[in-house]
Amino acid sequence: MSTQKINIGLFGFGPVGQGFYKLAGQRANNKINIIRIAVKDQKKERTLDRSAFTFDYRELLHAPDLELIVEATDDERAGYEIIKTALLKGIPVVSANKKLLANNLEEFVDLSIKTQTPLLYEAAAAGAIPIITSLDSYFNDEVVNAIRGIINGTTNYILSSMLQQGISFETALKNAQELGFAESDPKNDVDAYDAAFKLALLSVHAFGKILDVNDILRYGIRFIKKEDHQEAEALDKVIKLIAHVFPSGDGIEGLVLPTWLAKEDDFSSVSAEFNAIEILAKDSGAHLLKGKGAGSLPTGSALLNDVIKALSGGYTYKKLNKAQNPDGIEIEVILTLKNPSEINGLLEVQKQVEANGNIKITAWINTRDLKAQIGYLEENEAGLISTGRIRKVIKQSKSDKLSCTEKKIQNEVLN
Amino acid sequence: MSTQKINIGLFGFGPVGQGFYKLAGQRANNKINIIRIAVKDQKKERTLDRSAFTFDYRELLHAPDLELIVEATDDERAGYEIIKTALLKGIPVVSANKKLLANNLEEFVDLSIKTQTPLLYEAAAAGAIPIITSLDSYFNDEVVNAIRGIINGTTNYILSSMLQQGISFETALKNAQELGFAESDPKNDVDAYDAAFKLALLSVHAFGKILDVNDILRYGIRFIKKEDHQEAEALDKVIKLIAHVFPSGDGIEGLVLPTWLAKEDDFSSVSAEFNAIEILAKDSGAHLLKGKGAGSLPTGSALLNDVIKALSGGYTYKKLNKAQNPDGIEIEVILTLKNPSEINGLLEVQKQVEANGNIKITAWINTRDLKAQIGYLEENEAGLISTGRIRKVIKQSKSDKLSCTEKKIQNEVLN
Repeated sequence: MSTQKINIGLFGFGPVGQGFYKLAGQRANNKINIIRIAVKDQKKERTLDRSAFTFDYRELLHAPDLELIVEATDDERAGYEIIKTALLKGIPVVSANKKLLANNLEEFVDLSIKTQTPLLYEAAAAGAIPIITSLDSYFNDEVVNAIRGIINGTTNYILSSMLQQGISFETALKNAQELGFAESDPKNDVDAYDAAFKLALLSVHAFGKILDVNDILRYGIRFIKKEDHQEAEALDKVIKLIAHVFPSGDGIEGLVLPTWLAKEDDFSSVSAEFNAIEILAKDSGAHLLKGKGAGSLPTGSALLNDVIKALSGGYTYKKLNKAQNPDGIEIEVILTLKNPSEINGLLEVQKQVEANGNIKITAWINTRDLKAQIGYLEENEAGLISTGRIRKVIKQSKSDKLSCTEKKIQNEVLN
Repeated sequence: MSTQKINIGLFGFGPVGQGFYKLAGQRANNKINIIRIAVKDQKKERTLDRSAFTFDYRELLHAPDLELIVEATDDERAGYEIIKTALLKGIPVVSANKKLLANNLEEFVDLSIKTQTPLLYEAAAAGAIPIITSLDSYFNDEVVNAIRGIINGTTNYILSSMLQQGISFETALKNAQELGFAESDPKNDVDAYDAAFKLALLSVHAFGKILDVNDILRYGIRFIKKEDHQEAEALDKVIKLIAHVFPSGDGIEGLVLPTWLAKEDDFSSVSAEFNAIEILAKDSGAHLLKGKGAGSLPTGSALLNDVIKALSGGYTYKKLNKAQNPDGIEIEVILTLKNPSEINGLLEVQKQVEANGNIKITAWINTRDLKAQIGYLEENEAGLISTGRIRKVIKQSKSDKLSCTEKKIQNEVLN
């Protein structure tokens, strides 16, 4: 690195942008010069002098002295233009915008490789946890069999407070919103979209394949009841929202489902703001990484680390589109019945799903629910689950983009 | 990387060398050519043809086609010559020889930087856990306040089996030796030398300072009794051998001590072959990395990852000899008395040690022992501890190389 400062354009000044701004002033050997900060809202009270800002992101995007971009907006349309334009101009980009990245991953990765321009997104994957860096720089020669994680702090906070305080989902959500842990529109977190976006970012580095977020079997925590926690507790289990991704046939399979965990499971003790990710590597075994998955300084720190990394190059994408040879893993889904009369149909589903693939369905028979060990699917307000609900989930998917899991279940349920 | 193979000399063919050899044949795009394996014992039965070996390490070290060295011996003298010679010749070295590295770290790091020749040692620090890579490439711009870890699998196995089977240290050690988890001379593991070597390797990347292993306050598990586990259990605690390192004044302070942990502590659930390391980073908070700390394939995989990394460069050593500005942390040491009559002297020690520095001593008064929350110092066969024992520990240190902790305690105890 020369002694010259690097001229950075910062896009977005929410908590993450502010965290980055603060740390950039203290660290990186004072080599960072933030030329301007692009924000949308002209009326919002800011902590910096008005001259630090521009309200026209294109003005900053095309500034002649711009050398690196930090994209910390939550704006998908402007963000897309910013990243694409920058890469085409050969300007390195560091981004925390997981939705934008996940939805355009194939195009962005392709562009970054073709233009040889770094595009780094550690801050988007699991806050401060160096999971992308580890996968891309350390596990890039080793086959990864699977990845499992708690990668959404909001749902983790809600599940924890439901359990600890014995309150309903609605109350826990309201509390989380009041404390700033959940947004006013909680859909993104609560329905597990956010976790699905992150899974896509992890998958390209773990398995070398682009995972379409629409192909992820995604089931949030909206329908988890107080009683579900009590029932889990009685069985010495804890309910967590677990994201899971693993190679399956020629593709990869992504799942984000409420899951019963044994209390001794490392994930059972992951508390509110923390995320945790387990890498199951073929030769070196299980690795756990745990750290703060959100927050102004942790995420800002991840952006700053990426800025420094971007000065010496981008990701290796060493596995991209290269055949891997993972050990098969088995996901066990426990389905239980609302009504004992459904048992024959269920056992038939189980038999046929197990016949091909690495998903094992185990019937758990009680009168209350149809539920999953990984997977805790629900049917109605009472948190009950039936094959009918599974059909409904499948119907929500684009029929031409069904994941392997869904196709298997669909074949059985719809036939 | 060109399509040409890289010519590697492998030194040592114990479990780790064999693990590396096996994986090198399967991975790394078949770009590795192991030209020969240097071993000492001519009579030992080997799994490969005799032609694969040389019994003269110097012959391999000076082979004209040698391009990279994998040093997996446990031979300090030959290892020193191998690493030094290679670096001076500009041949990159990957090593798993923690004792050799820790004892010569200043010289080796200096030589690696001066000759611009990579010297990588991820496999020496905590087996498969990418801790050095993370510290060196991801946390190299962020201040680290402290590192804490379980970094010796043998002692962890012994402590676990003592607790679970209710057996004595001697029996647990004997079992571990029979199962190959402990060596016939267990001193290196049991007296915490091994953990101290690893702490030195972590410290140079976390804090930018070379930690002399002789300055580490090191107390093994040899004197832990069945009754100690029972007592811990009664207080809802678990005893683990915890390595701890943090900046203190102008230097750094290293401790490896049996420690009482709350059962909810992440480290309490770390089982036999696993290691775990916590990085307390100033901005991004606590990070936990957990993985296999030993074993043929996990450690062999770490060597292979380092080989690939060495082709593109060595460690950054970005923090080396640069001032850091960590947040102060406090280590609480609980001293308890064998004899209530010692209480006044102990309280005096406590007051004065606390007066300067980040070590807080809390008296735990019972008639049985003088013990540490972090720190479980012992006095005699019955596992009892007194100020007398501390004096003895201090006397074992070179008097001109006392660590800060020891000096503080010495001042109080010897005066």
